Amino acid sequence: MADRIDFYFDFSSPYGYFASTRIEALASELGCEAHWHPILLGPMFKATGAAPLLETPLKGDYSRHDMLRTARLDQIPFHVPEPFPIATVAAARITLYAQGLRPALGIEFAKRAFKAYYVDNVHIGDAENALRIAQAVGLDIDDTREAIASDAIKAQLRSENEAAMARGVFGSPFIFVDDEPFWGFDRLDTIRRFVQNPG
Amino acid sequence: MADRIDFYFDFSSPYGYFASTRIEALASELGCEAHWHPILLGPMFKATGAAPLLETPLKGDYSRHDMLRTARLDQIPFHVPEPFPIATVAAARITLYAQGLRPALGIEFAKRAFKAYYVDNVHIGDAENALRIAQAVGLDIDDTREAIASDAIKAQLRSENEAAMARGVFGSPFIFVDDEPFWGFDRLDTIRRFVQNPG
Repeated sequence: MADRIDFYFDFSSPYGYFASTRIEALASELGCEAHWHPILLGPMFKATGAAPLLETPLKGDYSRHDMLRTARLDQIPFHVPEPFPIATVAAARITLYAQGLRPALGIEFAKRAFKAYYVDNVHIGDAENALRIAQAVGLDIDDTREAIASDAIKAQLRSENEAAMARGVFGSPFIFVDDEPFWGFDRLDTIRRFVQNPG
Repeated sequence: MADRIDFYFDFSSPYGYFASTRIEALASELGCEAHWHPILLGPMFKATGAAPLLETPLKGDYSRHDMLRTARLDQIPFHVPEPFPIATVAAARITLYAQGLRPALGIEFAKRAFKAYYVDNVHIGDAENALRIAQAVGLDIDDTREAIASDAIKAQLRSENEAAMARGVFGSPFIFVDDEPFWGFDRLDTIRRFVQNPG
């Protein structure tokens, strides 16, 4: 049992996508709610000196293989999208804007945006593509286009990213179960074991 | 079932130590033998641009916490040693030398060296400390001291490290089940699932 889950993800993270397909079930299992937080890995990678996964020698080849294997073993629809990685600022801002209207709407957008990119090969780094997904979940496309160009939403994303880093977030997915941090899709079982035995 | 396991580890890797406590049981479970390969992460980190774990901003704090949590949940005796990380070239060369005499002797040395560092706080980066562990498993201390200073063993470690990188190894623990690569202690369950469902 837990009081809350905070789920941090970048739309450009395949393992973040994998986690997005499981986080609601995990929250139900733990009897709590999952709060979704879109983040931008760019500033975090600058802090940790990390490089984009697939561009890293040795690690890139392994990661591509591991993503495909993980999707297969966990039966998650997935392909390595092209282009990859992408700028996810538009999708992240739309998520925040939708959450501001209604939290569940933000989650619905995020799920569809993940699926569009990793299953249907829609380039969600293109703001217009991301806006069409917003429209599909019921947002007004013109209001949303205006909102994500506003200083308010830009400042909100920046400050939420800073707050995430201040809390220790440096990768995607990054999950807090109450105050306990877990990095990586491969930590979902660890979360279950931790909750049984919090020490 | 599998034909063989290749287990690559750096003595300065806590997750490598964790894996060393489980790899023989995994090999038995899969009905094969585990071949132990001491490696040096230094040249690999140079290739991938990785930094020593605990020195990385954000990631360092998380990793320290995760190591302790992993040890606790998996009931593996462990503390974060001081100093950390250390040069592991002496311990790696002793392992190769002992394996050359008898493979099981190399494994026995490696297990004791891991325990000395992560449980008993013996600084195995100091060659004399590593040599005393060699002596404790039945190696002649003077022969071993001479062997690890020889050009032959230096060249062997270098070429084995290069062969590991050529195979795709870039971290510790790194495990091949036949030709399938797995990086990280948190992939042991993935190995079991993969072997059941190799695709």
